[in-house]
Amino acid sequence: MSQSRQYYPSRIKSVKKIMARRHLDAVIFSDINNIRYLTGFTGSEGTLLVGRDESVLLVDGRYKLQAACEAQGVTLSVYKNYFPGIGKAAKKLGARKLGFEAGVTTVETHRRLIDELKDAKLVPLVDELKFLRARKDESEIAAMKKAAAIAADAMGAILAEIRPGWTEMETALQFELEARRRGAQQVAFETIVASGENSAMPHARPSNRKIEMGDFVIIDFGVRYRGYCCDETCTLAFGELTVAKKNAYRATLKAHDEAIASIREGVAAASVDRLVRDVLGKKYSRYFVHATGHGVGLEVHEAPRLALQSPDVLFAGMLVTVEPGLYFPARWGIRIEDTVWVKKNGCQPITKLDKKLTVIE
Amino acid sequence: MSQSRQYYPSRIKSVKKIMARRHLDAVIFSDINNIRYLTGFTGSEGTLLVGRDESVLLVDGRYKLQAACEAQGVTLSVYKNYFPGIGKAAKKLGARKLGFEAGVTTVETHRRLIDELKDAKLVPLVDELKFLRARKDESEIAAMKKAAAIAADAMGAILAEIRPGWTEMETALQFELEARRRGAQQVAFETIVASGENSAMPHARPSNRKIEMGDFVIIDFGVRYRGYCCDETCTLAFGELTVAKKNAYRATLKAHDEAIASIREGVAAASVDRLVRDVLGKKYSRYFVHATGHGVGLEVHEAPRLALQSPDVLFAGMLVTVEPGLYFPARWGIRIEDTVWVKKNGCQPITKLDKKLTVIE
Repeated sequence: MSQSRQYYPSRIKSVKKIMARRHLDAVIFSDINNIRYLTGFTGSEGTLLVGRDESVLLVDGRYKLQAACEAQGVTLSVYKNYFPGIGKAAKKLGARKLGFEAGVTTVETHRRLIDELKDAKLVPLVDELKFLRARKDESEIAAMKKAAAIAADAMGAILAEIRPGWTEMETALQFELEARRRGAQQVAFETIVASGENSAMPHARPSNRKIEMGDFVIIDFGVRYRGYCCDETCTLAFGELTVAKKNAYRATLKAHDEAIASIREGVAAASVDRLVRDVLGKKYSRYFVHATGHGVGLEVHEAPRLALQSPDVLFAGMLVTVEPGLYFPARWGIRIEDTVWVKKNGCQPITKLDKKLTVIE
Repeated sequence: MSQSRQYYPSRIKSVKKIMARRHLDAVIFSDINNIRYLTGFTGSEGTLLVGRDESVLLVDGRYKLQAACEAQGVTLSVYKNYFPGIGKAAKKLGARKLGFEAGVTTVETHRRLIDELKDAKLVPLVDELKFLRARKDESEIAAMKKAAAIAADAMGAILAEIRPGWTEMETALQFELEARRRGAQQVAFETIVASGENSAMPHARPSNRKIEMGDFVIIDFGVRYRGYCCDETCTLAFGELTVAKKNAYRATLKAHDEAIASIREGVAAASVDRLVRDVLGKKYSRYFVHATGHGVGLEVHEAPRLALQSPDVLFAGMLVTVEPGLYFPARWGIRIEDTVWVKKNGCQPITKLDKKLTVIE
């Protein structure tokens, strides 16, 4: 964790800029990934109040010791009762106008906060926090590159061994095992292994279906390293391919490649999605049933969104996926995905595997 | 999944009872575990509107096929834009007064729902939904028993092999592997293996620390089977024990046993927690820094809460953990946990391992 230590003050500073702009005395964070990002605390529950001169991290008794070891630049407060604990911390900070994460805080928690903080004003923050973690610094990019390297290495071991007769479930398990052996903390999400007709379902769960000759097999995989995720997808062909499958793969790869070639600072996220649909063309685009991509970081899905309706604009330091796919209901599907690092004049994939069609004979 | 099929109508009926009581035309569900419980859909995102005569499940394009295969008793609607999709579904159901999950829905989503559903009234539901999934039926208990059996069997394999020199991380990974081999879908939560001074942190993450003679090692483990979780904790002693450790283990086990003996329908959850603290007594209770337990089901933590401040009352069909622990900061810790099935006149542990002190020489 120590690699990030130098970054916490500047992260807190970006919150203070929001506070100044919105005339806030404090911001209440309960999104555990935001708290990790701002303090280094890696527990599963906590609340952070960033004040003008001091920040308070509230945890329950389970996390007293861990928070004391990990959290940087905060006063630690162990609460017995949650809402009164926040009330006490707000009073300590002299906070009368507090921002909160409106995209995370539930309606019920909000109601109870209002009850607790009677005279204080609660200000919903949405757009102000949307990109809080979007521009990754060196330590974050290093962690994500390491995650991607472990994932690719583990998948390489699978590709060398996989054969018809393996079940989807076994394949997913084997990937996880290889990844953990190589130092992954855990998988970043439940590994998708979707074979044959299951590959027509973009988010199928691994089943006991055995891979057969003639299948397309979609493997969507990622691991977590120092909390950070990577996200990559390969589609493997087992045995000889029909012309229809070859053409569909080629179209998907072309859309993937052209989308990546279009990404650089200043590009509208929606335009990347539009480009994918344009390249897929009339023949294929209606089989592309999801968005082109999303940001990746401490969460596997975070801002920005690369979708037609997205208002987001890409900037340098973002890590985003590019993952066009085609899904022919009840027949077969294809998805090709890399995670790329957005830069001033282009982008750089951090995921490692070659996306040329891999045929397993 | 088919074992549950017969249960969906009665689950939807319990929602309709709430609607009748609160004079609602519909309830909007976005908690994916509630949606799975009510329909059988196992995707990661969706929204369910339960109306008077019809229920509508909204999914995005990724889940069209999967939802069509899995979801029972609903009309399927695939949306392109989320909020307009809900607006359309509400109109279709003729719903003008809609309940929503106030403990799940964020302040921002609520604001956008209000914008979308202009003339309709949104009614926050909290207490009404708290115990929606709390009373488990036969199919759920069968899944949880199977999960517990797999977990115990996998942990048995670990106990036969574990020795000083294993790292916490290796031990956790080995457990997961053994569990997956035995048919677990995945682990129910990141397995905790906390050795030596790490065992003083109730929720420590597995590290590269090697287990040494003289250590207590807390292993908190669970797996998921057909979506359902189990939750169990063993504390192992490596080598000879000090008198202080022996006494602390004995006190924790006594608290655990007496708490379980006290559980039956009608008992206040708070009284179980109070009993644990009473049995631990003046000498130990201040080292018990978390609550006694929680409900388990599709989520590893769900209602009820077994804590001093809990207003909950236990009823038959609940599955709850009993997990007293002692944590001596920077020194060592103990936790002993079983998941029990609450019945009319008592309770029955579904977790399997003997909690007598296990000493590994």
